[in-house]
Amino acid sequence: MRLTTPAPAPALAVSQWFNTESDITLDGLRGEVVVIETFQMLCPGCVAYGLPQAQRVQESFGHELKVLGLHTVFEHHSAMSPVSLEAFLHEYRIVFPVGVDEHEPGLDAPVTMRRYQLQGTPSLIVIDRAGLCRVTAFGRHDDLALGALLARLIDEPRPVDGCDPDHGCIITTTTRPDMPARPNSEDPQ
Amino acid sequence: MRLTTPAPAPALAVSQWFNTESDITLDGLRGEVVVIETFQMLCPGCVAYGLPQAQRVQESFGHELKVLGLHTVFEHHSAMSPVSLEAFLHEYRIVFPVGVDEHEPGLDAPVTMRRYQLQGTPSLIVIDRAGLCRVTAFGRHDDLALGALLARLIDEPRPVDGCDPDHGCIITTTTRPDMPARPNSEDPQ
Amino acid sequence: MRLTTPAPAPALAVSQWFNTESDITLDGLRGEVVVIETFQMLCPGCVAYGLPQAQRVQESFGHELKVLGLHTVFEHHSAMSPVSLEAFLHEYRIVFPVGVDEHEPGLDAPVTMRRYQLQGTPSLIVIDRAGLCRVTAFGRHDDLALGALLARLIDEPRPVDGCDPDHGCIITTTTRPDMPARPNSEDPQ
Amino acid sequence: MRLTTPAPAPALAVSQWFNTESDITLDGLRGEVVVIETFQMLCPGCVAYGLPQAQRVQESFGHELKVLGLHTVFEHHSAMSPVSLEAFLHEYRIVFPVGVDEHEPGLDAPVTMRRYQLQGTPSLIVIDRAGLCRVTAFGRHDDLALGALLARLIDEPRPVDGCDPDHGCIITTTTRPDMPARPNSEDPQ
Repeated sequence: MRLTTPAPAPALAVSQWFNTESDITLDGLRGEVVVIETFQMLCPGCVAYGLPQAQRVQESFGHELKVLGLHTVFEHHSAMSPVSLEAFLHEYRIVFPVGVDEHEPGLDAPVTMRRYQLQGTPSLIVIDRAGLCRVTAFGRHDDLALGALLARLIDEPRPVDGCDPDHGCIITTTTRPDMPARPNSEDPQ
Repeated sequence: MRLTTPAPAPALAVSQWFNTESDITLDGLRGEVVVIETFQMLCPGCVAYGLPQAQRVQESFGHELKVLGLHTVFEHHSAMSPVSLEAFLHEYRIVFPVGVDEHEPGLDAPVTMRRYQLQGTPSLIVIDRAGLCRVTAFGRHDDLALGALLARLIDEPRPVDGCDPDHGCIITTTTRPDMPARPNSEDPQ
Repeated sequence: MRLTTPAPAPALAVSQWFNTESDITLDGLRGEVVVIETFQMLCPGCVAYGLPQAQRVQESFGHELKVLGLHTVFEHHSAMSPVSLEAFLHEYRIVFPVGVDEHEPGLDAPVTMRRYQLQGTPSLIVIDRAGLCRVTAFGRHDDLALGALLARLIDEPRPVDGCDPDHGCIITTTTRPDMPARPNSEDPQ
Repeated sequence: MRLTTPAPAPALAVSQWFNTESDITLDGLRGEVVVIETFQMLCPGCVAYGLPQAQRVQESFGHELKVLGLHTVFEHHSAMSPVSLEAFLHEYRIVFPVGVDEHEPGLDAPVTMRRYQLQGTPSLIVIDRAGLCRVTAFGRHDDLALGALLARLIDEPRPVDGCDPDHGCIITTTTRPDMPARPNSEDPQ
């Protein structure tokens, strides 16, 4: 699981959420470590090892970080509609929040998937407390290495008022609701 | 895997076939051993062990018997439409013919599933050369025992003109197209 | 699992038996289907899949055929002595009879292993009711195919008085104790 | 995997080492994180999951910490002699150093196993840079949780000259060869 050069995590573009009462934005999670499992419900590797690993992360670290799923459909669109996804989440007992990555007419890959330049599914995204993306990794990942990475990110200091001595101060729409949104902040929905 | 008392296999009621150029009926397969894997595409046990076992049967015995899938949806109907099933079969590389079990308005369980009185999915149905149902078994089945059963059914004599010394003569609409269909023969479609 | 040309199964040369009160010979088992799992206790493939398959055969077919283990040590001889083997059988809960393949001074491969010309461990030997060797297969084997083979061998007729219409009459030292032993009959021990 | 109250790790009592050119003591490793997989070569759980996990730790963290094996034989002593162990390590491709836990006449459990009060095999021991034992856990352990623990121990500061601000200064026979050995330091061998 290769680390990426830390860079601000692009906003999520989600057309519909499951397993959560209110919409979720990365700005709203600033200060938390966020693990995003991107998947397609009919992708065999996602079912066989991607989602099970996300479920193990939820069980082992669920009280210390935030696990999200993102349904990044880039093929068979009519076969993996939100109606099908909802039944899938129920049958596979996936309890963490799952968003449907937003589609734009004429493009196969959905918006968030393109923002993160993901290669395919399953891909794992890990975002640190300062909102920087640290991992975007396609394929299968080792639990030992992932456990080590998550422990280290959990142990990083929580940025104070959006400020982190190493990365400067970041204005968030959450902590400063009077401020205009950053260019790459969450899409209005 | 418990054997059932041999009895004539009820006809399949299929609204749509995949992976075959022409519709399939049990009457048309009379004389062959037939293995039917009944499943729902969003049933985790079907994906984890039912369908993989059917694929192994296809690989090991595909030239000696007929493997069919039957999509017996009894819940989340709109989530497991034929459009979704088609993508599922493609992604999971299922190459044997798969039929969609026919629904009747107001009933959750589809027609064939009720005819065979299946308990749920996955269930395995095995039919002998004489058209008698020998197994309808819910759940997970041992490969050694299944291999033994299939070898024995393959080795049973092929009925001559629909006649089998142990079971009498059975009129089939296939071998005697001039005869009226048996009460439980294939549905006209 | 390739079948071999049926040929009389060479006798076992066993220096010590475990899990049986009296010594076992193939002549004494004539009329039974015999499955022999040849292994070395420190061979990882034997522990991971060879012996577990033999245990599954014992569970599924134990009342219809005879499962034997044969400890064919051809390397690390002092590391895999009968004392170590006994503890191994206890810890891995192997309950079928296991023989120690006999060694001759100066030769790495033991006697029975050479008689059957085995390539290594694990190897599976299957002998039919007439005492003919039908399989000597090195490596990993499919449960479906093995189940099919065993069912067919179990269903072959039991030779009457050592006579089999297809193979002629075979004198066994067991059924005819007054007869001299055949050249390839069991070693005196 | 429950953490223990940190306490000085008892010395290892090893009668023979494999996979290392010189004997290993915990005093000599002071400053390093040490992971000790205690096992018996004929313990099925050790072979199935204990040792494979230690091998994964060696692969993922081998450059950042020290993995050791300890053969803590408490039953079938003659079956698991050093001669058998050596062949076992070769066949299972275990490349990290493995010590044989020392026996005392009349006692089944070996010396180190008793010092650490282990419940059985496999048990995992983890020792921090200051020489404090942090984990002694029997059974099967989650890779995610173990990866997290090891990352955190690796990130703890290396004690300076045997001194650690949180735990005080510890005299080691390695760094201060002129000093008498501590009561629980390594056994002379």
